[in-house]
Amino acid sequence: MKTLKDLFVHTLQDVYYAEQRIIEALPKMIDKAETNELRNVLNAHLSETKTQVQRLEAIFEMIGEEPTTETCEAVDGLIEEAEELMGEVEDRSVLDAGIVASGQAVEHYEIARYGTLAAWADQIGLAEAKDLLEETLEEEKRADRLLSEIALQSVNRHAA
Amino acid sequence: MKTLKDLFVHTLQDVYYAEQRIIEALPKMIDKAETNELRNVLNAHLSETKTQVQRLEAIFEMIGEEPTTETCEAVDGLIEEAEELMGEVEDRSVLDAGIVASGQAVEHYEIARYGTLAAWADQIGLAEAKDLLEETLEEEKRADRLLSEIALQSVNRHAA
Repeated sequence: MKTLKDLFVHTLQDVYYAEQRIIEALPKMIDKAETNELRNVLNAHLSETKTQVQRLEAIFEMIGEEPTTETCEAVDGLIEEAEELMGEVEDRSVLDAGIVASGQAVEHYEIARYGTLAAWADQIGLAEAKDLLEETLEEEKRADRLLSEIALQSVNRHAA
Repeated sequence: MKTLKDLFVHTLQDVYYAEQRIIEALPKMIDKAETNELRNVLNAHLSETKTQVQRLEAIFEMIGEEPTTETCEAVDGLIEEAEELMGEVEDRSVLDAGIVASGQAVEHYEIARYGTLAAWADQIGLAEAKDLLEETLEEEKRADRLLSEIALQSVNRHAA
């Protein structure tokens, strides 16, 4: 990689991989979640994530690149950690607290990456791509806030 | 794990591992960084991180647990990704943009974890631990903001 555009494309491929791994992982988290409230937030985010993949594909098209993935060790690690945790917690209310925590760790990874990608898109003059990336960024931030809300309002109390 | 306290201890061990990995990884990022400004932010954060490790040790003591680590696949993945990137970018100004991005991904992982730990500490009645965790949380958020600022003010422009 030699230019900021190269780095932008590389990171786009990394998030494109990450979103697909998240689409595979979320249904397992939804299956394990005990409360309806948590299942609903995760389900809504699963459908948002599918739209986010389409936005990434639209950006690949804008810049004349085929949508390809780049293995993202960070999201692999986040999901591995989430799955291990789901196997290690015996109490279902405590497990819900763990699922919220794992979900928020994934959201924060995406918040970091989309924030970076939007700033780079702006810098290299890809205004339309920047708007799409910021749309996704706001969805990730909202998903993180919703998870915090249900943790504080109910999940943590039930777990304690 | 059966209780929220068990999950709290498990996650504390995970961040204790993560902080130590970060203390090993930061000097390599500082070495590769081209601009003084970026090196200064990373250096300041390295010294903050050492204090954060001491805070974690204080919390282990408060709850009567030996400070032990739990392998954190997420931070391993984040650091692996950062190191791969540092080997793949040829231009040093572009590399600075990549280092900022990697740093922010790590910060966001910590923001997620410390936010969760502080909420759990509060829920299980560990007020003093909660205060220490929130102190670290604010440092992580500030480090993330500083990285955004230097990215927008100089690093991204030099990279483009």
